[in-house]
Amino acid sequence: MKEFSIIDSFFKAQSHQRKDVILGIGDDAALTTIPQGQALVTTTDTLIAGVHFLANANPHGIAQKAIAVNLSDLAAMGAEPAWISLSLSLPIADEVWLSAFSAGIAEMTKFYSIQLIGGDTVQGPLAVTITAQGFVPPEQALLRSKAKPGDFVYVTGYLGDAGAGLDILLDKLQINDGDSKAYFLSRLHYPTPRLLAGTSLRRLANACIDLSDGLSSDIRHILKASNCGATIHLDKLPLSKAMRESIEPNVARNYAVSAGDDYELLFTVSEEQKGKLELAMASTNVCVTCIGQLNGIANKLEFRLNNTVVDEQPRGYQHF
Amino acid sequence: MKEFSIIDSFFKAQSHQRKDVILGIGDDAALTTIPQGQALVTTTDTLIAGVHFLANANPHGIAQKAIAVNLSDLAAMGAEPAWISLSLSLPIADEVWLSAFSAGIAEMTKFYSIQLIGGDTVQGPLAVTITAQGFVPPEQALLRSKAKPGDFVYVTGYLGDAGAGLDILLDKLQINDGDSKAYFLSRLHYPTPRLLAGTSLRRLANACIDLSDGLSSDIRHILKASNCGATIHLDKLPLSKAMRESIEPNVARNYAVSAGDDYELLFTVSEEQKGKLELAMASTNVCVTCIGQLNGIANKLEFRLNNTVVDEQPRGYQHF
Repeated sequence: MKEFSIIDSFFKAQSHQRKDVILGIGDDAALTTIPQGQALVTTTDTLIAGVHFLANANPHGIAQKAIAVNLSDLAAMGAEPAWISLSLSLPIADEVWLSAFSAGIAEMTKFYSIQLIGGDTVQGPLAVTITAQGFVPPEQALLRSKAKPGDFVYVTGYLGDAGAGLDILLDKLQINDGDSKAYFLSRLHYPTPRLLAGTSLRRLANACIDLSDGLSSDIRHILKASNCGATIHLDKLPLSKAMRESIEPNVARNYAVSAGDDYELLFTVSEEQKGKLELAMASTNVCVTCIGQLNGIANKLEFRLNNTVVDEQPRGYQHF
Repeated sequence: MKEFSIIDSFFKAQSHQRKDVILGIGDDAALTTIPQGQALVTTTDTLIAGVHFLANANPHGIAQKAIAVNLSDLAAMGAEPAWISLSLSLPIADEVWLSAFSAGIAEMTKFYSIQLIGGDTVQGPLAVTITAQGFVPPEQALLRSKAKPGDFVYVTGYLGDAGAGLDILLDKLQINDGDSKAYFLSRLHYPTPRLLAGTSLRRLANACIDLSDGLSSDIRHILKASNCGATIHLDKLPLSKAMRESIEPNVARNYAVSAGDDYELLFTVSEEQKGKLELAMASTNVCVTCIGQLNGIANKLEFRLNNTVVDEQPRGYQHF
């Protein structure tokens, strides 16, 4: 099967179609239009078999996660998503695999009203690269660099569930309750990009980042870019019902602070905006939790448990 | 070495900087602005070790080719390039390799006045995915679908040189002359994206495509999209001095018609625009050659040698 027939057969027709796409898949490049007054937001992320997912993982899930992690980056900028491009490296052109993978892509494009505008399929080790594009009014974009000492630190959703899911998959964690186990695995395979939360944070949050490598690792990017320090209360980290019921508290906290792949947003809000923020987030149906506060001591990250400083510093995911 | 230090150390500072980039590398996504009246043009292409280049290939060349093949897609749309994103999958974070690779990226960004706005570095089999973005006034974009029966078919530059280079590398072709050998290899490793030719073809060419898989394969995309047929004269295919002097004519013609990786533009021009076209291209310093003509017989591709129909149909590069 040739590259052209793969794109034509599996991807072109199935994608959601948008009016701002002049030309999608099928030419040398895609042509799209940007609304006036908006900046273009672009991000790219790669998932590799054996590193980010198991080689025999469900292709539907691989497709959905590859898109979700990119949309999560757009969410962290306060952007709304518009288009994605796909580069797919495949050892063999297996039609069953491609059908499930492309169905996963198609569902995501419909659910998020985005369009697949281009792609490259190559023969090689299994890997998926997505580039996602969206818009945000430039003055409302959520940057890592605008946090201020005194800001309160919030996260969306629950932390650590994907990490527990990964350890279940790797046989490092035994969960007996079937529902909890399924929940952890679904948080690993199907993360939720917090797009609505992201756009709701425009004009309210000072800084924002998405949690891909783990809280303890990712928050440092905000501290570094904003020249701040932070105190984070480990006992305030939001834990899911499954986490609270099936994993003992110190292990659960360790997942919540160190494990990657949650794709929740971490953002900072001034005291003045705190009330408005909690009101705005209530309407998005995403729970948000205040987990600490920033200070002026550059790059100093301190964790506390029941208000006592924790000595050992948790570490996030290491790429190399 | 962590992902962040790789991006910071090797890529961030070195890139050419553009004024239309509000935020480049270093946040969750990049923020850029599009000039009014222009459409955004997006393309993505992946090069994989062992498929598109040898695993021990010069990293400087890998970087430059990965960018060039993407800029070639923008050229084929008549677009001017603006920004690139990089996804780099590496087995190990080798500093010598990364220095040479990032130098190759930096040179290209300066030469083409484009900015590297984002990247993802992951541990995995050696592979490079570039997404390139640029602009074109939407009504002037060069599509595959606007060719007309009667149009003359042109190509830029010379054909087949990269194919000869590949066969030298694979020990399938012996070239004794050192200069010719070096020339073929340089055309394989350092293709020239025909950007100036592409923008000069706006309002002049009816259809355009870049030659990545080989003339005999790529021209079919125009025939299919435009519902045309074509007669191509094999004896008119432009051959470089090295090709003419060091490879016998029938072998040379075979490279020119079937081999991939030339990244020249193939475009079609109406009889009325032919004079203007040749004048416009003269000022770009890119030679163009008329190699045939379109007709109304959908998808019929006919090759002639000295005006006699050639029976065996040449085939381009097969992806799977």
